[in-house]
Amino acid sequence: MKPLHPIFTVLVTPLTSQTLAHAQDPLPSWNDGTAKQAILAFVKEVTEKSSPEYVAPEDRIATFDQDGTTWVEHPMYTWVMYYLERVPVLAKGNPELKNVEPFKTVLSGNREAMAKLSLKDVEKILVATLTGMSVDEFSSEVSKWLASAKHPRWDRLYTALVYQPMLEVMQYLRDNGFKTYFVTGGGQGFVRVYSGRVYGIPPEQVVGTMGGTKYGYDKNGKPVLTKEPKLLLNDDRAGKPEGIHLMIGRRPLAAFGNSTGDQQMLEYTKAGDGARLAMLVLHDDAKREYAYGPAQGLPDTKVGIFTEALNDEAKKDGWIVISMKNDWKRIFAFEK
Amino acid sequence: MKPLHPIFTVLVTPLTSQTLAHAQDPLPSWNDGTAKQAILAFVKEVTEKSSPEYVAPEDRIATFDQDGTTWVEHPMYTWVMYYLERVPVLAKGNPELKNVEPFKTVLSGNREAMAKLSLKDVEKILVATLTGMSVDEFSSEVSKWLASAKHPRWDRLYTALVYQPMLEVMQYLRDNGFKTYFVTGGGQGFVRVYSGRVYGIPPEQVVGTMGGTKYGYDKNGKPVLTKEPKLLLNDDRAGKPEGIHLMIGRRPLAAFGNSTGDQQMLEYTKAGDGARLAMLVLHDDAKREYAYGPAQGLPDTKVGIFTEALNDEAKKDGWIVISMKNDWKRIFAFEK
Repeated sequence: MKPLHPIFTVLVTPLTSQTLAHAQDPLPSWNDGTAKQAILAFVKEVTEKSSPEYVAPEDRIATFDQDGTTWVEHPMYTWVMYYLERVPVLAKGNPELKNVEPFKTVLSGNREAMAKLSLKDVEKILVATLTGMSVDEFSSEVSKWLASAKHPRWDRLYTALVYQPMLEVMQYLRDNGFKTYFVTGGGQGFVRVYSGRVYGIPPEQVVGTMGGTKYGYDKNGKPVLTKEPKLLLNDDRAGKPEGIHLMIGRRPLAAFGNSTGDQQMLEYTKAGDGARLAMLVLHDDAKREYAYGPAQGLPDTKVGIFTEALNDEAKKDGWIVISMKNDWKRIFAFEK
Repeated sequence: MKPLHPIFTVLVTPLTSQTLAHAQDPLPSWNDGTAKQAILAFVKEVTEKSSPEYVAPEDRIATFDQDGTTWVEHPMYTWVMYYLERVPVLAKGNPELKNVEPFKTVLSGNREAMAKLSLKDVEKILVATLTGMSVDEFSSEVSKWLASAKHPRWDRLYTALVYQPMLEVMQYLRDNGFKTYFVTGGGQGFVRVYSGRVYGIPPEQVVGTMGGTKYGYDKNGKPVLTKEPKLLLNDDRAGKPEGIHLMIGRRPLAAFGNSTGDQQMLEYTKAGDGARLAMLVLHDDAKREYAYGPAQGLPDTKVGIFTEALNDEAKKDGWIVISMKNDWKRIFAFEK
């Protein structure tokens, strides 16, 4: 075919860019299968104007759990690793801590003992490490930590351990007019530090576990927001739809999770009218990542629980399970 | 000039639409003066790529108080009117209420006595009228109320009493890449019902006074969110920057308010680096709207307080006072 005059290229770009994106496969890291087809079919259903399930762009909301859904959560959630690694810093200013639990265990450096800490213990650490810190100091400390802290198995930054297929889903949804949100049990202020750079999700689209802050003034009279020992919302299980209502104010069209902590978010999403998409990432690839989830015959775990009840509801309510082993061509961007 | 071939019209539209918007005056309801010039100069400063104060579109956040800043707040806040008018409905199901304060006063219909109720009383009413209601029922009840409840002075719907010059500022900011937010003392769920239709602000961009909800199931097993008697954040005074941090996660470039309840939001906004805009609407037009604010020699009020301290800080910190009387050509869209 004779090349078109440049003026035509300009004219037709807005029309063909979407067609081209489709032709180019928006989900190149996915194997062709039920999961990939479900995503493509759902997006078509809600975005094609002729479809009976068409949804206006301003109502296209998609929510993603983070830990275990868009990045590695084993052996421990990244945000918990951060809090644990802050304890020695804290102990320098307060030597008595080394005789008080749970700080004593953390300061011992015994990873096995640390793995046995309860979420209540982690909460105690969280309150002790953060109270009185300004939100700006906190962000810059997290930034610094993320620039060097590495995952022990891959010896790579935690922010490199993001699932490439999920980044593609997020981008594909955004290209189709969706607003993509995190709805995570992780600390809201923690996740906001890197969500834009790593996932393309701005701070206002991070719904996380929320702590109170207190407005005041520094010694120069400059306004400052300081972290308070007050939990506003634990963004886990029932807290997820509650957090969605608080920060978004409407029901998602699509939701992605991987554990029992995401059950209520997926239920809530699927209970809306019209076409809805609910998906669960199953960690069944011990070779390339991890394998856990007793309901699927995989080893049990305390981090990222996938119970029998979750499995039953997924089946009954038409949630689609994503097998990391079978559905994903590659897991990380650094793989060949 | 010879008309251009249609193909050129298509090509140049994206370039000229902004130029045309400027040529057409984006703020036609504003008289030319300090306030209008400040808005135009600020937008130019942060959006022109060659400007040293240029800000990337994704960081352009503007926050607006609602009551008294974008619509009428006298003689009483619209959301308070709604709660008060719900009391008779509630009393039908619970006849004992007519002997208990503050319900007794409200049921008496004595407007003078009602005007003397404290915010604590209103809070009691709020808790009593809303607890146990599903968020969907609440939205549909508010919707119904707004479709018929009228302001006594103008005999018009409350949603018609929106300030046309402020709608123009919101639209002008959005046309220049800003995300516009409400940051209001009004109930978040209440404001979300009409913010999209009336102001072009979607539910996720309404930061208001936040109550807790509880996730559960109705008698058919369908997920439902129910209102709880738990205040998460009182979005007034220091609560405004706290609410901004919670829901937006970054500092606004521009903030608009009208009373002492907005002081901290404006301080916080102006304390950021680079060009910032802080503006206060002054109610000095008894003829077309209301006149109140003792710091400016106007009558005192309990609703929309404009104190001496606010006035002093505005002067010291370079906030710009908008005179409704002098800066606004017209106040409401229904005026000729």
